[in-house]
Amino acid sequence: MQTGGPFRHRLRVRLNECDTQGIVFNANYLIYVDVAVTELWRELAGSYGELVESGVDFCVAECHVRFHAPARAEQDVDVSLTVTRLGRTSLGMRAVLERAGVLVVECDLRYVFIDPASLEGDSIVTQPIPERLRERLARMTDGGEPPP
Amino acid sequence: MQTGGPFRHRLRVRLNECDTQGIVFNANYLIYVDVAVTELWRELAGSYGELVESGVDFCVAECHVRFHAPARAEQDVDVSLTVTRLGRTSLGMRAVLERAGVLVVECDLRYVFIDPASLEGDSIVTQPIPERLRERLARMTDGGEPPP
Amino acid sequence: MQTGGPFRHRLRVRLNECDTQGIVFNANYLIYVDVAVTELWRELAGSYGELVESGVDFCVAECHVRFHAPARAEQDVDVSLTVTRLGRTSLGMRAVLERAGVLVVECDLRYVFIDPASLEGDSIVTQPIPERLRERLARMTDGGEPPP
Amino acid sequence: MQTGGPFRHRLRVRLNECDTQGIVFNANYLIYVDVAVTELWRELAGSYGELVESGVDFCVAECHVRFHAPARAEQDVDVSLTVTRLGRTSLGMRAVLERAGVLVVECDLRYVFIDPASLEGDSIVTQPIPERLRERLARMTDGGEPPP
Repeated sequence: MQTGGPFRHRLRVRLNECDTQGIVFNANYLIYVDVAVTELWRELAGSYGELVESGVDFCVAECHVRFHAPARAEQDVDVSLTVTRLGRTSLGMRAVLERAGVLVVECDLRYVFIDPASLEGDSIVTQPIPERLRERLARMTDGGEPPP
Repeated sequence: MQTGGPFRHRLRVRLNECDTQGIVFNANYLIYVDVAVTELWRELAGSYGELVESGVDFCVAECHVRFHAPARAEQDVDVSLTVTRLGRTSLGMRAVLERAGVLVVECDLRYVFIDPASLEGDSIVTQPIPERLRERLARMTDGGEPPP
Repeated sequence: MQTGGPFRHRLRVRLNECDTQGIVFNANYLIYVDVAVTELWRELAGSYGELVESGVDFCVAECHVRFHAPARAEQDVDVSLTVTRLGRTSLGMRAVLERAGVLVVECDLRYVFIDPASLEGDSIVTQPIPERLRERLARMTDGGEPPP
Repeated sequence: MQTGGPFRHRLRVRLNECDTQGIVFNANYLIYVDVAVTELWRELAGSYGELVESGVDFCVAECHVRFHAPARAEQDVDVSLTVTRLGRTSLGMRAVLERAGVLVVECDLRYVFIDPASLEGDSIVTQPIPERLRERLARMTDGGEPPP
């Protein structure tokens, strides 16, 4: 993994991800973000699955998405992830999606770290970001500086 | 529920289920079948979730799908389900999908009843169809006759 | 359609819309919003398809989503839509998703009205909201008052 | 591209492609097949999009799917495609999906070549497989022998 700077992942738009407008359906960009974030956890923690097995999970609490230009079937989309905020239990990330250098989507997300066991109950229980992850996430800020 | 004859469920094609061809993407018809089958279990067993909680689950072991005519966004699709075979651990079903009386898709499925706990391990363990379900499924044959 | 107040649409969570966490995958809530908005256009303009055929289309330019509580397989989700802003070419909408009275997701969206023909080219061309739609949308504000 | 023998494409299972059972939802394997087939057309004809622009499209007329073992989130799935039949307007293909050498899904498909313009009308019009594609497809049989 690159030290400092964004984490990058490339994927190709699938035919079924486009709708009758001939462009990627809006919800599918959030899938692309999730795919990239899952790849990030492979780098940071072995895999997302291992993270969960170790008793740590997270979910999206909030996201703000701006759709700048459409992507189309078979185009390569590059997702860049940076850390914008490192809270005690919450993590701010920004995802920038581009195709051939054209800005497609910007997405600001707030993740919350949770106890995976609580997902089966009525209320989801948050937990602090584990220290070993916190250090690695701190390196993923735009300038390589630890975020606030 | 109707006694004898097919179980019917109607749904409306969503925009994102159609691809760049302007028609429903092939895999999505299997989602429609799954939606109808889940509704069937609401009739037969309270809900699919209750079935699983009672220690009974199932999965598709095989399906044969014939695509006759496309369905398009916003069209109503009627799914009809009949039981074609009642084995000890396996269940044959036929799903017929129509829109305004036009045959869209025929799908023959073979489900296998399994122990839900085995889904987490390396090999899935089958189990007999519970007797209380077997009787209800037997009424769902085309002529209302118990299938072989 | 109700005069004034939100437009409401109910749907049931499908099994395949939930992921390994056992709850609805985040992107799928945007599909629910799209389903409700499409139903709204059936009320306002015959159907979304007719709208497009008449030379009017729209796409999401921006959305802000807050995830409050998860929804699970087979639960009924109620989507309520209100108009929050009526611009010349853009439309602000708020979607509130609830299950059994529990707030699940709030989503603020900004739609832009576009020329459908421009979707095939390199840059999407906006167009004013047609007058006949503007009047109907104006009635969909929270208090029934025309939004700014 | 390899001369003779199957065309191969690897992809990684996304979290949202698994359902509450913790394994890939059945319909999503057909998406995997479609992704691999689209990659195949990149090899054979530049891209699927170019194929359609040249006046040639195809759709699935029939498929037979056997689900042997589940795939799970983050696992790599290898899709192998071979040509099993080359008709005048129809193409038989077999897709074999494996993960780490374990057979996951076998899928036999019958594609029909069509006039893309006819997709907008009431009945889809078939057309012969173009000669330039026929030769390339003929090399994709199991033994490299032209199929019947």
